[in-house]
Amino acid sequence: MTLPTYKILDPNIERLPYQELQVLQSERLVNMVHYVYESSPFWKNKFQEAGVLPEEIKGIEDLHRIPFCTKSELQKDQETHQPFGSYTCSDPSSWAHFMTTSGTTGRPLRRLLSHRDFDYIVDYFHRRGLPLVPGDKYMFTGPTDALSGPTMFTAILQRFGVMVVKAGLLDTNAKLDLILELKPQGLSGTPSYLLHLAEKAKQRGINLAELGCFKGISSFGEPGANLAANQNRLKAAFGVEFVVDGYGMTEICSLGTNCPSSSGFHLPSDLVVAEIVDAKTGNKVDSGEKGELVITNLFGDTQPLLRFRTGDITSLSPPGEACECGFTGQRVMGIEGRKDDMIWYRGVNIYPSAIEEKLREQEELGTEFRILINQDGDNLPTMTIQVEANPSISEHNWLELSKKIEGLLKTSLRVNAIVEVVASGTLPSVDAKKKSRRVIYNKTSLSARS
Amino acid sequence: MTLPTYKILDPNIERLPYQELQVLQSERLVNMVHYVYESSPFWKNKFQEAGVLPEEIKGIEDLHRIPFCTKSELQKDQETHQPFGSYTCSDPSSWAHFMTTSGTTGRPLRRLLSHRDFDYIVDYFHRRGLPLVPGDKYMFTGPTDALSGPTMFTAILQRFGVMVVKAGLLDTNAKLDLILELKPQGLSGTPSYLLHLAEKAKQRGINLAELGCFKGISSFGEPGANLAANQNRLKAAFGVEFVVDGYGMTEICSLGTNCPSSSGFHLPSDLVVAEIVDAKTGNKVDSGEKGELVITNLFGDTQPLLRFRTGDITSLSPPGEACECGFTGQRVMGIEGRKDDMIWYRGVNIYPSAIEEKLREQEELGTEFRILINQDGDNLPTMTIQVEANPSISEHNWLELSKKIEGLLKTSLRVNAIVEVVASGTLPSVDAKKKSRRVIYNKTSLSARS
Repeated sequence: MTLPTYKILDPNIERLPYQELQVLQSERLVNMVHYVYESSPFWKNKFQEAGVLPEEIKGIEDLHRIPFCTKSELQKDQETHQPFGSYTCSDPSSWAHFMTTSGTTGRPLRRLLSHRDFDYIVDYFHRRGLPLVPGDKYMFTGPTDALSGPTMFTAILQRFGVMVVKAGLLDTNAKLDLILELKPQGLSGTPSYLLHLAEKAKQRGINLAELGCFKGISSFGEPGANLAANQNRLKAAFGVEFVVDGYGMTEICSLGTNCPSSSGFHLPSDLVVAEIVDAKTGNKVDSGEKGELVITNLFGDTQPLLRFRTGDITSLSPPGEACECGFTGQRVMGIEGRKDDMIWYRGVNIYPSAIEEKLREQEELGTEFRILINQDGDNLPTMTIQVEANPSISEHNWLELSKKIEGLLKTSLRVNAIVEVVASGTLPSVDAKKKSRRVIYNKTSLSARS
Repeated sequence: MTLPTYKILDPNIERLPYQELQVLQSERLVNMVHYVYESSPFWKNKFQEAGVLPEEIKGIEDLHRIPFCTKSELQKDQETHQPFGSYTCSDPSSWAHFMTTSGTTGRPLRRLLSHRDFDYIVDYFHRRGLPLVPGDKYMFTGPTDALSGPTMFTAILQRFGVMVVKAGLLDTNAKLDLILELKPQGLSGTPSYLLHLAEKAKQRGINLAELGCFKGISSFGEPGANLAANQNRLKAAFGVEFVVDGYGMTEICSLGTNCPSSSGFHLPSDLVVAEIVDAKTGNKVDSGEKGELVITNLFGDTQPLLRFRTGDITSLSPPGEACECGFTGQRVMGIEGRKDDMIWYRGVNIYPSAIEEKLREQEELGTEFRILINQDGDNLPTMTIQVEANPSISEHNWLELSKKIEGLLKTSLRVNAIVEVVASGTLPSVDAKKKSRRVIYNKTSLSARS
């Protein structure tokens, strides 16, 4: 069985009325359910174990009857059915790209994209448009090899006739030299690396904002750029009015970006359908409530996933509510954090991004920070947040600054943390090649029994 | 002025009779001369300085009247006319790719390729064909970002529907794991890295040749793979009958490969014309003689180069002599070395590749070696060649082995060198990310006047 051909480039899909969108999603879901059931032992088995027949899924109203799928389940299936897992549905002759997940949990997942899958995603971004034109230059600050987002975005830029500059193999200083030389209109990186780059530029006396070349900055791979305070720092550092914040995951695909009217990610509602569920129970939550994002592929012939639990905690825009820009599809209203990054600290659940947001609002601070959670044996854990002072702040003011931030975190987040202000350049610096991990657990067993 | 549209995909171009090829080359050369003269201050100036008018170039018989161009001249022009030099002929809106040279001499050259330039080269390789088919997997062992050859070859593989696996960011062990898992049909890397990879596999008890997956191995970026002894080692290590040896340079383009009938590189004679000149005087040498390869672009609208001195020492197949496979264009008969890599040693000129060839023939040796040239003040220089023993050779046989190789180098290359046999794994190992440099000069000044 094959999937029908879908017209992705049609710009009307971005503006379809709610009812029409539901009809379109329902049709494609039904096609997908039959397709995966017939094409892969993994999915047939999952449906059978759940006691659900493909015929019983009549539309998106039946989505909740389809069993969830998780990353660890896919990892296990790929381990058993090497190399790509029994959930792979298409013939090898259609495969175009090999990607791997960049996450740190478990065996990296091998992700295949057929020519069809890949082109559909490029078409989708083509449909959304780009403020860059032929003659413009776009620089990647991170590597691109085998990484889903950058590989896809390279193809998108080429579709628009933009010259692609891959600077991922250069060190930070060489990247700055190349920026001065080429004056690119676009630049991408993880938000933490882009802030690090801007700080290194400042240290060399370079004001990137004054170059006046950037039409936009794109941030991918970490949730940081949807924090307003980070957005503001990036806008100021690069002299741009809008920071493009991208969202997606290798397991599903590059999903979408925010828009100038809203920080919510626009989802391609012809390609995926999103749900929010309670991260513990898996039950649906009320509209607008926070919970774990679950994504179902409505396209994709190679490794489509139904009800994939992303681990990302967020909420969706209310059903049928259009974005200010006119977009009618589903919107993901900012990633609060990942389920597995959540810190359980003395009875409070905190996402590192909540702490980051508060720190970014403080002009007296530089860009680096880290959160250390220490626990000696059975004692209560302690949280120490190390932050770098902005070099303009004199060392006698550090103590006062740390007290101020401690108070702020206590009142706004109910977190009792020790804040240590350290000199700029002291904390380990961010690597363009990796997502930034800022929480360090240090558990020592003092008692024999622990 | 623009260049005419050329049909690159036509397979007959590979078999054109000598006279027709000369007519085709002459027409394209005339077009190119007018194009560069009118489109770029750099070329207008060069022609004027040489006292040559574009109208005076009637065909390839007038090639010698066109002034040479050198890498350092291009570097200087890019330095003065940042970022891309005044020799760049096309409008920025046509630019698709940004590449940089990988060489170590001077400022890296910024190379632009328009959509037209890039597609023409992909078309040329498409015309030549590929033994890989949809469903096959091809793995790059080195990084690809901003590198001309790998970027181009990625597009070529995709044209053929082959799945591309970019493993350049992984370490050697992870690359081996991925090979075991994916069983790719194609694999590329520098010859020295591919030998290193095979050695690491052997140490882990993996016999890559027995995997039986490889249809071919491609070697790029270093001349090593056109040495018969290296070819034999690669064939044995990967269990293949043919090692594809690629040739090209970022300044010009990816030029071509050998073929199963001959180790000479087939040049696309509709895209470039090659000459051999005396490396010192720049005068033409007799047909079949060795000298410096000079390449003229007959296509390329963005940074075409006329009479570019490659620095590579080689010879060409006799004019009009077809390859055994039927190819009628020019063939480069193996790169002996680079002009600037040549070692002047006690009155003898030696290319490191000549030494490499002899070492590779010795089964008692492993894959790593290096050449140390030491000179104390005004004393005569000494050459020490460090070679790794194959782990199967017992240490008491090392001295005998070193004597044997010293004798061999003396009789075959007239080189008096001290050969030091060292244990396997002792010499610095090869990096997949870099071309291998094996000659180390160590000059110490003992006297005040030197």
